[in-house]
Amino acid sequence: MSETIAAISTATGPGGIGIVRLSGDQALEIGQKMFQTMDQNPLDLDKNRVLQYGHIVDNKQVIDEVLTASMKGPGTYTREDMVEIYCHGGRIALSKVLDYALRLGARMAEPGEFTKRAFLNGRLDLSQAESVIDLIEAKSNQAYEQGLLQLSGALGQEFREIEDKLMEVTGLIVANIDFPEDDIELLNREKFQELAQDLLARIDHLIQSASRGKMLKDGIKTVIVGKPNVGKSSLLNVLLKEDRAIVTDIPGTTRDSIEEYISLDDVVLHIIDTAGIRQTEDKVERIGVERSVAAMDQADIILALFDQSRPLDQEDQDLMDLLKDRKVLYILNKSDEKGKWDQEFKDFFQDKETFSISVLNKEGIHDLEEALKNIYYDGQVDVQGLAVTNLRQLDALRRTKKSIEAIKDGVEMDVPMDCIEVDVREALNSIGEITGQTVTEDILDRIFHDFCIGK
Amino acid sequence: MSETIAAISTATGPGGIGIVRLSGDQALEIGQKMFQTMDQNPLDLDKNRVLQYGHIVDNKQVIDEVLTASMKGPGTYTREDMVEIYCHGGRIALSKVLDYALRLGARMAEPGEFTKRAFLNGRLDLSQAESVIDLIEAKSNQAYEQGLLQLSGALGQEFREIEDKLMEVTGLIVANIDFPEDDIELLNREKFQELAQDLLARIDHLIQSASRGKMLKDGIKTVIVGKPNVGKSSLLNVLLKEDRAIVTDIPGTTRDSIEEYISLDDVVLHIIDTAGIRQTEDKVERIGVERSVAAMDQADIILALFDQSRPLDQEDQDLMDLLKDRKVLYILNKSDEKGKWDQEFKDFFQDKETFSISVLNKEGIHDLEEALKNIYYDGQVDVQGLAVTNLRQLDALRRTKKSIEAIKDGVEMDVPMDCIEVDVREALNSIGEITGQTVTEDILDRIFHDFCIGK
Repeated sequence: MSETIAAISTATGPGGIGIVRLSGDQALEIGQKMFQTMDQNPLDLDKNRVLQYGHIVDNKQVIDEVLTASMKGPGTYTREDMVEIYCHGGRIALSKVLDYALRLGARMAEPGEFTKRAFLNGRLDLSQAESVIDLIEAKSNQAYEQGLLQLSGALGQEFREIEDKLMEVTGLIVANIDFPEDDIELLNREKFQELAQDLLARIDHLIQSASRGKMLKDGIKTVIVGKPNVGKSSLLNVLLKEDRAIVTDIPGTTRDSIEEYISLDDVVLHIIDTAGIRQTEDKVERIGVERSVAAMDQADIILALFDQSRPLDQEDQDLMDLLKDRKVLYILNKSDEKGKWDQEFKDFFQDKETFSISVLNKEGIHDLEEALKNIYYDGQVDVQGLAVTNLRQLDALRRTKKSIEAIKDGVEMDVPMDCIEVDVREALNSIGEITGQTVTEDILDRIFHDFCIGK
Repeated sequence: MSETIAAISTATGPGGIGIVRLSGDQALEIGQKMFQTMDQNPLDLDKNRVLQYGHIVDNKQVIDEVLTASMKGPGTYTREDMVEIYCHGGRIALSKVLDYALRLGARMAEPGEFTKRAFLNGRLDLSQAESVIDLIEAKSNQAYEQGLLQLSGALGQEFREIEDKLMEVTGLIVANIDFPEDDIELLNREKFQELAQDLLARIDHLIQSASRGKMLKDGIKTVIVGKPNVGKSSLLNVLLKEDRAIVTDIPGTTRDSIEEYISLDDVVLHIIDTAGIRQTEDKVERIGVERSVAAMDQADIILALFDQSRPLDQEDQDLMDLLKDRKVLYILNKSDEKGKWDQEFKDFFQDKETFSISVLNKEGIHDLEEALKNIYYDGQVDVQGLAVTNLRQLDALRRTKKSIEAIKDGVEMDVPMDCIEVDVREALNSIGEITGQTVTEDILDRIFHDFCIGK
């Protein structure tokens, strides 16, 4: 018996059409109680998946004029019986229809609960289920295409192959526990090395794909730093404006610091403008500077702005020190002003590539953008390929890798097989968290917690 | 031949499901080009209104995994052939699918164009069509129910009856033009009076319903005025908070002045907090005061706040003068402070009903709320009944009334019938603008301009 859940499945806000969705054992029964055709006939359950036109009627009171489709499981999204009601898209119509379904015995769906059921009922594997929210929240075409690729099951297939290989390894280990004295052992050691090598290579490949995956999903985290008044906010404005799509409809964008999403072709920059960095006794400003440094720690790339029209000073040197060992584009603003640019500057930046720009005259901006795009494409031949975009999956992959390395070390050092078995179990558990084989209710809750309600 | 239009019909923002909708002669053909089932079969047009599961595929590239329904006209919303595609609800999936439809020859739908076609093709009369946007944007249950009532055609029926009667009047007038010397004339005069009387009564009834209709639709426009520091903003906060639903998802709410929507049971207050009113030489503050006075001119009800803990002064007197002949609730705040309330106050407010409250201690607020609700219900026995909620319709009704009065005067004063005919035509034109009989393309454009795209 599955509880029947109900939710509004379309975005909130005014729209032409909104959808209320039911899934579970009682979905059809509740749907029949809610709906009648214009001729006052009930919802015809024999017309499976057919849009039927009529009213939602509560105690002879019409609630809305709708299309309704009943869908018998298992040929549905959740594999359960489902009903979808296509209402007028306003707040009131949708809440009234939902409320009515709840009064008839449905329970309000948790975020992502429809997709969770699709997973629990075997319609989607776990990485497919996780990709659904990525699809919906994708900020760029590439992130979207990655979501589609994952939804097709390609990534899940990769994970399952890793899991299968790991099962093979387990088989070898177990065989050695049972027959420790047999000569199988030597034979297996070779086979084992081969399997372990292959596994680590596959996992490394996936882990490496993750930094691209993260950029795909969240954009390249781009932090603008520089002394006060060097043109940081102006640079942000120049990057933001004109023909570029400014992605402003992303939920949860923190407005405390200035953050924006910018699409350069298919590359999304997640730009963070920081407070000017300088030595300061002012308490409030100091907090700002500390935040700037913290932002740099999180950045995929730092745009460091310098003023080429004024002499270099201690603050420039301090900033340069902060930038050490980070991924930086060195940008020299104010190329429009009569230059200070001289040998001193050349010495300061040495062999670093610098971009001379004028935010004021919009000079050099195009080159800067190209450089930003190249950071994304650089060495990323396989831009279209599969990537891990999910931090949870990445974390579990890293743990799997660690366990496999421990197994490998154990075998090489002839550690007793039953000690190695602990690592084998951990490896299986970790990869199982991704494939869903060993996933706990707790992990599931965390996975679907970020979904929108109604999906 | 009808052009094929396409649009996203669900609200924007992240949601589980989003809908792309097509309507027109090519809708089915375009739908077939876009969709294929999981087994790579085309959209089966024989499965009318059936949700078919598959992919939107552009040049072998999967764009999204969807449900799609094709619907043959005339049994559709627009009475044309339609296709609805149920996509993943994110920005990218929906724009990609829409973009594909546009590339295949559909044109982006204008706001409300689906509903406009439903009207032009005779599925909805004009007042039904106009009610669709009211339904979607309804801010209260009552506004929503009014929208449903209008969508059922009840208001349209009323308008058509007025139009029919007016046609009868026209018949009489025309008969008199043709046979001016006949004795039909005298016979008709009586009949005419009767018809004109009935018409005016019906129209007056509808015009009277409009002020209730306006409150239903937009909320009771409630303006808070008072001297500075008398507690205006605090009163707004008290009214806003606690268990009440704060309607914040209404688009277009101006934030320049503080405006909020509050639901008291089924009554929606549209509350506007104003700048304190006092004599001032300060230029900026003066603009604020002028705006307050302008807001009072627009108000359905004014909440005038006074401070009962301090002596009355010239500013109180000035405010009182401004309030003359307006609908006011006199509210005496600061009942918690040791009172100044005395004979002077009694004389000042004379026989006016006053509400003594303490915003600080939340005393007297309940009584105030009840009074606000009563303003709505007072003398409005027929709260559930039909009401004109549409300013355009109200305006046309007023013009119809004016023309009928002119006809009536003309007949009474024995003006030549062919002069009266001008007024007859104007009356018919005006009512025809509501029923859709004489509506121009220009008027239609204005009607549907406020619709959301995709409805």
